[in-house]
Amino acid sequence: MALIVQKFGGTSVGTVEKIKNVASRVTATKQAGNDVVVVLSAMSGETNRLVGLAKEAGASSGREYDVVLSTGEQVSIGLLSIILQGMGHEALSMLGSRVPIRTNAHFSAAKIENIGKENILNACKDGKIVVVPGFQGVDAQGNTTTLGRGGSDTTAVALAAALEADLCEIYTDVEGVFTTDPSICSDARKMEKISYDEMLEMASLGAKVLQTRSVQFARRFNVPLMVRSSFTETIGTLVCKEDEDMERAAVSGVTYNKKEAKISVVRVPDRPGVAVKLFKPLSEAGINVDMIVQNISHEGHTDMTFTVTDDDYEEAFALVKETADALEAHDVIADQEIAKLSIVGAGMKTHAGVATKMFETLSEEGINVQMISTSEIKVSVVIDEKYTELAVRVLHDAFGLADSDVKEEEY
Amino acid sequence: MALIVQKFGGTSVGTVEKIKNVASRVTATKQAGNDVVVVLSAMSGETNRLVGLAKEAGASSGREYDVVLSTGEQVSIGLLSIILQGMGHEALSMLGSRVPIRTNAHFSAAKIENIGKENILNACKDGKIVVVPGFQGVDAQGNTTTLGRGGSDTTAVALAAALEADLCEIYTDVEGVFTTDPSICSDARKMEKISYDEMLEMASLGAKVLQTRSVQFARRFNVPLMVRSSFTETIGTLVCKEDEDMERAAVSGVTYNKKEAKISVVRVPDRPGVAVKLFKPLSEAGINVDMIVQNISHEGHTDMTFTVTDDDYEEAFALVKETADALEAHDVIADQEIAKLSIVGAGMKTHAGVATKMFETLSEEGINVQMISTSEIKVSVVIDEKYTELAVRVLHDAFGLADSDVKEEEY
Repeated sequence: MALIVQKFGGTSVGTVEKIKNVASRVTATKQAGNDVVVVLSAMSGETNRLVGLAKEAGASSGREYDVVLSTGEQVSIGLLSIILQGMGHEALSMLGSRVPIRTNAHFSAAKIENIGKENILNACKDGKIVVVPGFQGVDAQGNTTTLGRGGSDTTAVALAAALEADLCEIYTDVEGVFTTDPSICSDARKMEKISYDEMLEMASLGAKVLQTRSVQFARRFNVPLMVRSSFTETIGTLVCKEDEDMERAAVSGVTYNKKEAKISVVRVPDRPGVAVKLFKPLSEAGINVDMIVQNISHEGHTDMTFTVTDDDYEEAFALVKETADALEAHDVIADQEIAKLSIVGAGMKTHAGVATKMFETLSEEGINVQMISTSEIKVSVVIDEKYTELAVRVLHDAFGLADSDVKEEEY
Repeated sequence: MALIVQKFGGTSVGTVEKIKNVASRVTATKQAGNDVVVVLSAMSGETNRLVGLAKEAGASSGREYDVVLSTGEQVSIGLLSIILQGMGHEALSMLGSRVPIRTNAHFSAAKIENIGKENILNACKDGKIVVVPGFQGVDAQGNTTTLGRGGSDTTAVALAAALEADLCEIYTDVEGVFTTDPSICSDARKMEKISYDEMLEMASLGAKVLQTRSVQFARRFNVPLMVRSSFTETIGTLVCKEDEDMERAAVSGVTYNKKEAKISVVRVPDRPGVAVKLFKPLSEAGINVDMIVQNISHEGHTDMTFTVTDDDYEEAFALVKETADALEAHDVIADQEIAKLSIVGAGMKTHAGVATKMFETLSEEGINVQMISTSEIKVSVVIDEKYTELAVRVLHDAFGLADSDVKEEEY
């Protein structure tokens, strides 16, 4: 008998009818002899509605904001428990404060500090299916807190870690993690397995299947994660510790992000502290800078280029322009028509030439590489946005991602 | 400095804009030097939405139903707290479980057993406006409970009692308690004061301004209640202990209820236990029987007449018909086209002739009285529904309810 944590996202609990599907899946797992702990998001649209109300009232964070926001998941867990009971199962909803899921007191962006496992394990021992709201916790003073958006995945993983669960299943609206975007590349293949590190790079690069934070948590506590669809029976992708099997392929996937813009500060005097002066106003404004490239200096001047999200672009440009003028840079130029393209793979650590092959492949198609940035298991480039789909397809093909000795039929 | 509990109903918090009005009212009271504890209902429509979801899931009561339903008020208190903070006030929402408002474990119809006053009083001492959700509490095991519909008034009164508040203000969408329905009788006058007993009779007779349960609570703990409008500045009606002043008028108000039906069991053998046999099936079916009239027996037979709400009419008729046949009653006849008309007044206890005057007045208009039932401070009659408005007007006039030596200007 295993203990399985199953997490269902907003679209999986979007209507009472859909929650009934969730109930069927949960009871099937239970009837197979497992203990089941379920973590739910708010019904899709509900969090946005609550955020809208809070915003209209004047808050986008804080203690009272969390009081409002945390109701979304509470409704979901009550409804699923009602349905499970109607099917003849013993089900018990348990609020974050009752588990308890203890967090720090950073309202609206709380971090989980500690999870009590007694209450849940006792309920499981009594044969109950325990239903827990994602996204919420309680601080040391007993105040309701929320973990920030996407916190439900984190709740599930943290619970799985605390309960020493055998598996944490994340049910979502895709069938798993693919080698690239199937809507661009018909050869895209669902991966059987992916390492935490690869998943982190995929997630932060816009694969959007799992919240980065939950993957970090899973890696830290070595929680096996299964990402799968709530709408089909297909087995999904297992996110787990790197194993020998994974080393085989140098590259696991190709991801892209069109929602970035590039800003270059041209011929800025190359003095110590220039980078700080340029980026401090951005970080103070809460603007996240992604790739940063600075090349060697010429005649005491250098060029500094970085990317930000499209949403932050205008504010970032204005801030940087101001600093650049003060620093007596020659110019600030920008381009919104760019895309970031990345290849991710744990095997990259031990395989040479991956980057070269990437540049070659792009060059053969006449696609110019504007910026390059690398990490241990990732190579990212910035290209003209209009070549995105073409680039994804040729790279997916060049790295042989469509081929796999693991056949779908074996699942 | 006084401690005032202010309760706002669903229509008063129906939109964020309306909650801002509530905030203005609360802060005015606070700035006048009072401690303020606010009790809120769910935004209008929200409870119905949640009930609908729970019903679709398969529950109309129970632990999990309460988990779902209690979110409505939680949203309201978070929003008001956000707005108060935005206005520069220290505000703190406090869930039923944090106050705590301890109830028994009768989910969806829980009764308040005990309220802890320390947390609220400490927050007040710190200058905070405390905002509490109506309708919800927590049982001894820490489970969320709800008090049943209309429970928010009860929460407010119970809190006022526990905190020994100087006043409990119930803000609603009417300006107070009127001598009769102003939409029928243009002479209807808002009462300055009314006793708990009178208010109970008015409420149970369909005046619908205050929940009966909250008035009973207020009477038991002698909590002065002020019923007033959240949309005007007009002073409302004070519901309090009977005082000498009230004795002046024999009759305080005229109320009516058109939503009742009359069922008569004709010539039923008059044996001990007949009433039990007739009414037990009704109470078992959860049908509330209102007026019951049985007159003296003739030749070993009697007639038994009672009223039920229109909603329960069909089921009640079927149940009674079955019993009546078994008891060999001659017939069961029914009439849905009736109205119940009542005059209420604490002064009735010491004034003779009120009932007579009522019958006389109706008779002069050719209105036949079909049933009569009296209590210490009330006389109710059943009449043909079509005469309702006429009857209300002539009675209101006959008892001089439009006249008052307390002028509106004095408020």
